[in-house]
Amino acid sequence: MFSLNRRLHMLNWRVIGSIIGYALLMEGALLVLPLIVDIFYGEQVWHAYLLTILCCLVCGATLAALKSKHSYFAKEGMIAVGLTWIILSFFGGLPFFFSSEIPSLVDCFFETVSGFTTTGSSILTDVEALSHASLFWRSFTHWIGGMGILVFLLAIVPRSNDRMMHVMRAEAPGPIIGKLVPRLRESAAILYKIYLVLTAVMVLFLLLGGMPLFDSLCTTFGTAGTGGFAIKNTSIAFYDSVYLEMVIAVFMLLFGINFNMFYFLLIKNVRSVFRNEELRMYLLIVACSVVMIAFNILSLYDGSLLQAFRYAFFQVATVISTTGYSTADFNLWPMFSKMILLTLMIVGACAGSTAGGLKISRLTVLLKRTKLDLQRLLHPQKVDVITMDGKVIDKNVVHQICSYFFCYILILVIILLIVSLDNFDMESTVSACFSCLGNVGPGLGIAGPLGNFSMFSDLSKIVLSFAMLIGRLEIYPILIFLAAFLSHARRHRRSKD
Amino acid sequence: MFSLNRRLHMLNWRVIGSIIGYALLMEGALLVLPLIVDIFYGEQVWHAYLLTILCCLVCGATLAALKSKHSYFAKEGMIAVGLTWIILSFFGGLPFFFSSEIPSLVDCFFETVSGFTTTGSSILTDVEALSHASLFWRSFTHWIGGMGILVFLLAIVPRSNDRMMHVMRAEAPGPIIGKLVPRLRESAAILYKIYLVLTAVMVLFLLLGGMPLFDSLCTTFGTAGTGGFAIKNTSIAFYDSVYLEMVIAVFMLLFGINFNMFYFLLIKNVRSVFRNEELRMYLLIVACSVVMIAFNILSLYDGSLLQAFRYAFFQVATVISTTGYSTADFNLWPMFSKMILLTLMIVGACAGSTAGGLKISRLTVLLKRTKLDLQRLLHPQKVDVITMDGKVIDKNVVHQICSYFFCYILILVIILLIVSLDNFDMESTVSACFSCLGNVGPGLGIAGPLGNFSMFSDLSKIVLSFAMLIGRLEIYPILIFLAAFLSHARRHRRSKD
Repeated sequence: MFSLNRRLHMLNWRVIGSIIGYALLMEGALLVLPLIVDIFYGEQVWHAYLLTILCCLVCGATLAALKSKHSYFAKEGMIAVGLTWIILSFFGGLPFFFSSEIPSLVDCFFETVSGFTTTGSSILTDVEALSHASLFWRSFTHWIGGMGILVFLLAIVPRSNDRMMHVMRAEAPGPIIGKLVPRLRESAAILYKIYLVLTAVMVLFLLLGGMPLFDSLCTTFGTAGTGGFAIKNTSIAFYDSVYLEMVIAVFMLLFGINFNMFYFLLIKNVRSVFRNEELRMYLLIVACSVVMIAFNILSLYDGSLLQAFRYAFFQVATVISTTGYSTADFNLWPMFSKMILLTLMIVGACAGSTAGGLKISRLTVLLKRTKLDLQRLLHPQKVDVITMDGKVIDKNVVHQICSYFFCYILILVIILLIVSLDNFDMESTVSACFSCLGNVGPGLGIAGPLGNFSMFSDLSKIVLSFAMLIGRLEIYPILIFLAAFLSHARRHRRSKD
Repeated sequence: MFSLNRRLHMLNWRVIGSIIGYALLMEGALLVLPLIVDIFYGEQVWHAYLLTILCCLVCGATLAALKSKHSYFAKEGMIAVGLTWIILSFFGGLPFFFSSEIPSLVDCFFETVSGFTTTGSSILTDVEALSHASLFWRSFTHWIGGMGILVFLLAIVPRSNDRMMHVMRAEAPGPIIGKLVPRLRESAAILYKIYLVLTAVMVLFLLLGGMPLFDSLCTTFGTAGTGGFAIKNTSIAFYDSVYLEMVIAVFMLLFGINFNMFYFLLIKNVRSVFRNEELRMYLLIVACSVVMIAFNILSLYDGSLLQAFRYAFFQVATVISTTGYSTADFNLWPMFSKMILLTLMIVGACAGSTAGGLKISRLTVLLKRTKLDLQRLLHPQKVDVITMDGKVIDKNVVHQICSYFFCYILILVIILLIVSLDNFDMESTVSACFSCLGNVGPGLGIAGPLGNFSMFSDLSKIVLSFAMLIGRLEIYPILIFLAAFLSHARRHRRSKD
């Protein structure tokens, strides 16, 4: 690890500090929205939000003042992203703490990480007891986190330039990031416009189904970010409306699609959409999972195929898009259905969407690689090339995806070992870890759709918080940050000796 | 899959048939041993063994008569190995069926696959009800399967030559197979001599501890092959002797070490043993696991550290070496200890040993790869090279190991989905699949150390049988065989249309 440490000492910490500063200023500005909500509903938690805004502004302005003329590289981008997400989650959780709605700081951190990473796991036992402002802020964190905190900054701050590519690359989900248009800022702006339009359309659809405006907004934020924080204790089951369920399910699936597809539709490039292998694979997995689960749970719904499909479709959509809303307690479903849902938690949706998990495109490449390996066993002369969407994939990319897969499973095992110290049953332990790392939200057992994460120890909550961050930022930014942190601590100890 | 199919049609099936024929003749000869055991104990099951021997001889002689002048390649080697293991398991299970000791043919197949693959999972609810001959045969299958059925053939049949390398490569566990000495047959013979000597030494140690001769032989067969079929319902706990437990635990660990190490010791090349990274990693994992589990289970043994270490050491040795004997019902242990054991089931022991699992050397390469990836994020100019035991590892080998890892997890998920159709709890389902694919033996829940696999459906038993074969033969021989089988079935259907 020697060379790793030495490299970290040479980091441009001023650049990292100033990026975090701007992000904090932005968070302070965004916190004005829940403040307005509270003034509207008059629930007396405005002081908590005002106090937090002040904290953000003071710390943000101090850090933003750190400027650096030096250029910066991938590693600074990585660490800036990892650190920003951790710090913004900490500040974002303060309103819950100041308003005493969540008395433990660890719980506040967990809840806000869960929000920004669009996971949707909650430590709250009674969501409906929260003030409207806090419900709004919780759901709004999903909406910001979905597209990326720093991509948001990039889209609105005028001074950002193409050097920020490193930041965007570190924050964007999926193995390969392509720019839609040559200039990065324009790409970010186009993506945000698509995001805004889809959000507005979904709010309209929900209002048409008779959902109140506040509920529509919060539910849409949770769907758009594929987050899943509900504002009712029974989640979407509360509304008991087939129309609303179908609207939400369809939009969850839409937000699990690579946003480039919507751009292609905009510029009338329909052929690229149809040729997209990831999209086809995604729809195929959804269809197969729905059919298998529907037949598996048929007996639970008195043999009504329609009811079985209704619940199966919603739950598959919510898990594969890693949203986490629920209309049925799938804790009570047979093991086969649970196992499919657990698998989907790891698989996740498409790259370039707001969803978590391993991503379908990575899985597709790995499957093609396996098929090729088998073919080459029979016919060693076969060309060693993998194509996707008609293009040859560079060997290094394939290699990176293989490494990423191992790293993902390795981290999963480490998290599982730590969380199992709480000594819950295997179903709860395994599903909680799968769910947090995949940014899904609910798991099974005590962490099931009607349960929550309040029973876990503080150690588990912190580890699961980092699992969510690792899942959302795709491993490396958080690992690099942890390495920097540990190396700094070691150096500090050594200099004291 | 088109090109895959066409390649399969061009296989040299005559060569494959003749290899299977010789293997069947060998099995017939080996079955004489339990026949003698039965004549000695006079338990009247000799007719079952005699009938099976006749079946082996007739079918074996017929197939062995198929000779081919053409040469054969890796693919024929693969398919021959896969098919031989399946057919020998079927014939090896016939004595249990003819003697009515196991009335279901699926159960007979499961039990014998479990034997040859050195897994040790059993469908028997009362092992002690078996005749001595059947107990002997069950344990003896472990001993044969441990080193490899075809390697055994290779070591004793004079006409085998270096073309058989393909067969040995397909059957030997681990990522890289090296020949000890230039001629393959001599390598196989050296390995078998080491195996024989270690077996004899262990029998001696057990006899010194007061274990009866029959028990010593069967226990040693199970240990040498890292199998784990017990001849008592309570496994090794029956003897309740610290001396015997420690002897068995140490030998389980020894049989989990790459056999090349013993050869190096023989030729006084101690340096190569000390420099072996896989061995060091293996011992490190064992030590860490024992300490963590011992402290975790301390309260279960009234705070006695000695007792806790005694049970932790035996159980870690049995699981990491993928043997599967037990002295404690780790079903009752805390979730943390269970999770460590589950992880060890997947990890397995060293390549080139008789153990199953992913193998430590593969894991070491993957860990080094991950560390290198992290370093290269900070320092993109860093040389992209992984070394092991001071030697650079070829990139293709690293690539193959990454693919292997994905394939392993993929197969695990498929098996999990099918077995979960039985609707047992998650602990039983997950551990049964981990245990069978890793060739360990017992799992948790209903498949725990005091449980067995009798409750699973026939479908699950067949799938788990193939899981054991896939785990033992390291995936590809069985996958290639299944591909050949499916392509044949499809062609047959097409020609009927």
